[in-house]
Amino acid sequence: MNALSDLQATLDPSRKSWVESANDSTTDFSIQNLPFGIFSDKTNGTRRVGVAIGDEIVDLAALQTAGVLTVSKDAVFASDTLNDFISLGRDAWRSVRIQLSNLLARDTATLRDDAALRSKALVRQVDAQLHLPVQIPGYTDFYSSKEHATNVGSMFRDPKNALLPNWSEMPIGYNGRASSVVVSGTPVRRPNGQLKLPDQERPVFGACRKLDIELETGFVIGSGNALGEPIACADAEAHIFGMVLLNDWSARDIQQWEYVPLGPFNAKTFATTISPWIVTLDALEPFRVAQPAQEPQPLAYLRHDGKHAFDISLEVTLRPQTATQATTISRTNFKHMYWTMAQQLAHHTVSGCNTRVGDLMGSGTISGPTADSCGSLLESTWNGKNSLELKEGGTRGFIEDGDELTLAGWCQGDGYRVGFGTCAGEILPAQK
Amino acid sequence: MNALSDLQATLDPSRKSWVESANDSTTDFSIQNLPFGIFSDKTNGTRRVGVAIGDEIVDLAALQTAGVLTVSKDAVFASDTLNDFISLGRDAWRSVRIQLSNLLARDTATLRDDAALRSKALVRQVDAQLHLPVQIPGYTDFYSSKEHATNVGSMFRDPKNALLPNWSEMPIGYNGRASSVVVSGTPVRRPNGQLKLPDQERPVFGACRKLDIELETGFVIGSGNALGEPIACADAEAHIFGMVLLNDWSARDIQQWEYVPLGPFNAKTFATTISPWIVTLDALEPFRVAQPAQEPQPLAYLRHDGKHAFDISLEVTLRPQTATQATTISRTNFKHMYWTMAQQLAHHTVSGCNTRVGDLMGSGTISGPTADSCGSLLESTWNGKNSLELKEGGTRGFIEDGDELTLAGWCQGDGYRVGFGTCAGEILPAQK
Repeated sequence: MNALSDLQATLDPSRKSWVESANDSTTDFSIQNLPFGIFSDKTNGTRRVGVAIGDEIVDLAALQTAGVLTVSKDAVFASDTLNDFISLGRDAWRSVRIQLSNLLARDTATLRDDAALRSKALVRQVDAQLHLPVQIPGYTDFYSSKEHATNVGSMFRDPKNALLPNWSEMPIGYNGRASSVVVSGTPVRRPNGQLKLPDQERPVFGACRKLDIELETGFVIGSGNALGEPIACADAEAHIFGMVLLNDWSARDIQQWEYVPLGPFNAKTFATTISPWIVTLDALEPFRVAQPAQEPQPLAYLRHDGKHAFDISLEVTLRPQTATQATTISRTNFKHMYWTMAQQLAHHTVSGCNTRVGDLMGSGTISGPTADSCGSLLESTWNGKNSLELKEGGTRGFIEDGDELTLAGWCQGDGYRVGFGTCAGEILPAQK
Repeated sequence: MNALSDLQATLDPSRKSWVESANDSTTDFSIQNLPFGIFSDKTNGTRRVGVAIGDEIVDLAALQTAGVLTVSKDAVFASDTLNDFISLGRDAWRSVRIQLSNLLARDTATLRDDAALRSKALVRQVDAQLHLPVQIPGYTDFYSSKEHATNVGSMFRDPKNALLPNWSEMPIGYNGRASSVVVSGTPVRRPNGQLKLPDQERPVFGACRKLDIELETGFVIGSGNALGEPIACADAEAHIFGMVLLNDWSARDIQQWEYVPLGPFNAKTFATTISPWIVTLDALEPFRVAQPAQEPQPLAYLRHDGKHAFDISLEVTLRPQTATQATTISRTNFKHMYWTMAQQLAHHTVSGCNTRVGDLMGSGTISGPTADSCGSLLESTWNGKNSLELKEGGTRGFIEDGDELTLAGWCQGDGYRVGFGTCAGEILPAQK
């Protein structure tokens, strides 16, 4: 077991690194962060586990080989996914976090003063390629923003009864498609599908005309549960390894026609983009805040004491292919979410459903209380009716071919950030 | 490439085996079948690939080691899933089928007359344990029986407009939960969840009171497609390795409260049971029949020439814990399905969604045109209103604790069967 004081020390806002770029107050990757990912680079094309620090990546496989990073399983970082490392359990995640924080701290000479090892173990982010960080056995997407559900309900059902009765009783969720989860930077092809046009009796086949983002976060399961053995709400956070940004690309016109009665399918399965770095729950601890008040009080299996929301600033930018500047089209915060991650996981498993290491759970679209804090174009343009004016590149109702959409997210500490990097994707034209 | 005549010979109804139990006209596992599974036994607890023949299992790992079965990858059958073998591709599946059919044919001495090898390579089914045959990266469930969709629509919406407008235009489907797919024989715990009782304003938490089966088949992806590259309807069957029986256990009361607007979730994720033997599409070839006429004519991407349904007799029995006899509660046939497997796969991928080896696709509940051919208790008891009389053990509206539900399925050839074995599960009481 790790001493709690050692874990606490990794969060000390005054801790600085000898990797000077990590001390920049605007970097996402301060020494307080230490997010995990999978990378390769030009000199070494093999995928392996890395941790982002400032403008660099620390190669954990190299550190383990060199004997300066100790973990219970040999070569666990010489892997193309994080699953084996995550499977070692929370004590191992924390031990590695503590060791890395110490190794990278300004006053620790081990790596700082060993030029040979440093040249092996530090790779500049600009020279690296980032890959999907986990093999994802299951992907589930929730629908837990009250503002988002209210906007959608107002638009498509009844503004006076925008929220369905079940919404306030449980974190509504559905199974998504794990196969098409891709890492940030992967181009996304506009999907074809069935479109039901208002002036025609039968659907037509063609390219989606209402392509949209959904600004979400996702959490990654760090330890699963056996079939038939639910995870209690109070225990749920201990099962979470960390969080990513997630863009749940959505074809609104395909969705509108297909989704009754079994939910969205083709409208969502063509791609879901996640950011490459998994920010651990330990790194997010200082940014824990109270969740919104829940009324009515949830049923007992969904109750937890204490604070279970996290103050994560989020923004979305859109850059047309020909534009040099991107336009910020949304600014919001994860803390607005009505249902917490712990409640989502407790609900997911209450029927006995099992979860596995690497499972990804999307938050659902994160919308704030104002028009400029909507997590989807569906909401901010009110189903395309009110176009957004871009700084450069015209206006948008929905996404056009060549547009690059980028999510960003960070927690603001005192003089430092714990950030997620970006989650970006450019839209390619539909297949002819 | 295998000669088509060799493949054709494996389907010859007159071919007999020296494994005499395979020549019984009522066995599911004739020499014309040769389904693949994963087994272990008391003498050898290691999981490995087997093929069912009569009352026996042929151990393919033993045959490969002995050099009497040739395949391009070493030790591919010494695996606890079929995925590696399936990944070798259709030529390999067919080559192994042809070799096994020849090895097991009455006149082939190789294995028949080699007592030492036979004792290593044949395991009696009664001495074996069967395991989940594939690692399932993704599970999708369709809703493709017109009779089932009409029954459900009549019950919960409007008998005059029972089918929603999208139903006749596409094989409606949704993503299921792959983690909780279990093999036949695994006990299933009655789920707890939110129930909305008609006389109460808020939901209560408790054990499902309307536990049901869904009689389905499933198909297993044998070769996937890359993201953004749809599978054409005409090519789809070549991507299918084979079929299983599938019971999509459903908690009707949980489903009724949760499913709007994103579809079923907790109501389905607690367990899905499949049969242990995967019957290849090659073995099913003689039972190919025309699908029902489709009106309106599907959009172009869902059209295929020729026959794409399969004549598979299906039945469901229920045996209460204290009963010695089971009661047959449904008899129907897979050939009634409105949308074909090829159409399901073409639709699944038309948006660009990728599929992977081992992906499981459920047919949706298979109901026939009569009351005794319903694939769910929901339909046959009309939501519990008309109880079924059992031969032994009282009546049933829905499933009671201790009930064992068993699906069976077979194709009837001339003097032989190509069968699926059984897909069974007993219900354990809900967790307190």
